[in-house]
Amino acid sequence: MRDTPQKPHEQLAEALAGDMDAVNALIRKRMASEHAPRIPEVTAHLVEAGGKRLRPMLTLAAARLCGYDGPYHVHLAATVEFIHTATLLHDDVVDESKQRRGRPTANLLWDNKSSVLVGDYLFARSFQLMVEPGNLRVLDILSNAAAVIAEGEVLQMTAAQDLKTDEAVYLQVVRGKTAALFSAATQVGGVIAAAPEDQVQALYDYGDALGIAFQIVDDLLDYGGDTAATGKNVGDDFRERKLTLPVIKAVAAADDTERAFWKRVIEKGDQQDGDLDHALELLAKHGAMDATRADALAWSEKAKTAIDTLPASDLRDMLHGLADYVVARIS
Amino acid sequence: MRDTPQKPHEQLAEALAGDMDAVNALIRKRMASEHAPRIPEVTAHLVEAGGKRLRPMLTLAAARLCGYDGPYHVHLAATVEFIHTATLLHDDVVDESKQRRGRPTANLLWDNKSSVLVGDYLFARSFQLMVEPGNLRVLDILSNAAAVIAEGEVLQMTAAQDLKTDEAVYLQVVRGKTAALFSAATQVGGVIAAAPEDQVQALYDYGDALGIAFQIVDDLLDYGGDTAATGKNVGDDFRERKLTLPVIKAVAAADDTERAFWKRVIEKGDQQDGDLDHALELLAKHGAMDATRADALAWSEKAKTAIDTLPASDLRDMLHGLADYVVARIS
Repeated sequence: MRDTPQKPHEQLAEALAGDMDAVNALIRKRMASEHAPRIPEVTAHLVEAGGKRLRPMLTLAAARLCGYDGPYHVHLAATVEFIHTATLLHDDVVDESKQRRGRPTANLLWDNKSSVLVGDYLFARSFQLMVEPGNLRVLDILSNAAAVIAEGEVLQMTAAQDLKTDEAVYLQVVRGKTAALFSAATQVGGVIAAAPEDQVQALYDYGDALGIAFQIVDDLLDYGGDTAATGKNVGDDFRERKLTLPVIKAVAAADDTERAFWKRVIEKGDQQDGDLDHALELLAKHGAMDATRADALAWSEKAKTAIDTLPASDLRDMLHGLADYVVARIS
Repeated sequence: MRDTPQKPHEQLAEALAGDMDAVNALIRKRMASEHAPRIPEVTAHLVEAGGKRLRPMLTLAAARLCGYDGPYHVHLAATVEFIHTATLLHDDVVDESKQRRGRPTANLLWDNKSSVLVGDYLFARSFQLMVEPGNLRVLDILSNAAAVIAEGEVLQMTAAQDLKTDEAVYLQVVRGKTAALFSAATQVGGVIAAAPEDQVQALYDYGDALGIAFQIVDDLLDYGGDTAATGKNVGDDFRERKLTLPVIKAVAAADDTERAFWKRVIEKGDQQDGDLDHALELLAKHGAMDATRADALAWSEKAKTAIDTLPASDLRDMLHGLADYVVARIS
């Protein structure tokens, strides 16, 4: 007997256990390199660090939900996880991160070179994997997602410290850094299952909204979560001068004095003791935290509504539950 | 009237001028980014620096040689150039380079972040481009090449300062860093033209051997070329402790004292004034420079022989000439 009810991603993991075993076996096989042992060392450090494998599960769930019984959803799920892992390796170099999932980052344990080149290797491996099912529409979706992800990263780099960045640009960055891979993950599940077009679209919409909700929650918790739950310290984004949704909302409502404050701490990066506390006061004053929370909840609702048109099933219920779960930490 | 006879790559550029214009237009179009202007800035710096466009020309020449008259050789040529450009951006970060083609590198003009992320964007763009012709074999070849390239880079990083690195490992590194893209470039030209299998194989063999010759020449000139011709200073690889073919040959023939020298300067990186001169003496003493030169010439011959089976044509003659040209600087 279980003492606590399972969380949605645990239910998904149980329902898709056989498929996930196949995905994990394929990942281990394809991250090997006969000639360059550094590659599996670095990859294993990240892949086996105990992430939730949320993205590959989305692909598996979407394919099964649409009645797929072929072998290729496993390749596509592994593809999605490889793209995600490659992105993390490069992100940690770009952000000069020292911790990820509570462990030292690869760029710290090895070096930036290893992270850049092993990331490239995983990108290449992901493209090999996505070619294998021989489905051109899948290739189109995943190669487009890769471009949106990379564009979003560049956009974030240039927009993050610019106070002119508005909610529309923020949404673009969030689609790039998170939602594009979520929506591609669910969409290719439907495509490989040869699902009707309206179902493929519903799966895309679900992944897109889920990814956006997921990222907004992450950005919100950075100004008010507890370290144990997030693995991040409150104010990391503030110290790294990353303009995220709560601050964008506070800047939009700022008077001249407040605007000068944001200009100094974010654009100029001239931060002093007490600045984070003042920032939190301004976020509270303008209701920016509550408004951000409301946005996240709205995206979560949108995700659930999107898949209401799909045939009812346990998997659909679990995806519903997952959309609730990603916002559970803030609701 | 021309005063000097054209060089082979200039002949190719003239023969393929219309196609190359289309490739350049496609490159400019696809390196654009609506949202992140940093992307075309960085890309243009590299793409428009006046490289010879050797790799895309190989794809165009191979396709035309096999009678192709469709539109997709242009996409594949642009793909190959994007992969090459992405690799250069990441290489310069990994090597901490300050100059490329006689100009400051992107990582110096902007920063490492921009080079990593814009490189990722170009990789993603290259995959979008290669998907468009809808040819699964082309995708297989190019995604495999991308993996070999990345694996070769990682292998080089770990093997370059290890005196146990032998000629077999060197060849693997060289295939990764140079020949894999050359051979993929020529091979996909044949495949898109639906050429018979023996012609596709001949084109692959040509590209492979040409790429190896090209890289051996580059490594040889590092110990004996003039700066104006190479854009590099004599001894760059020595100072960066990169084990290349001349040194591998000298190490294989070294006595105990010489081995201790190589161990100190390459493995330990403890270099002093006069060490480069001593290294050059050892290379001369063991005939390592002559032996390396002979290897490059042999690969150039192999490239020419490979395409002897193809139907005679002006383009085939130019590819012959190109194989002579890449070793002309050392013969």
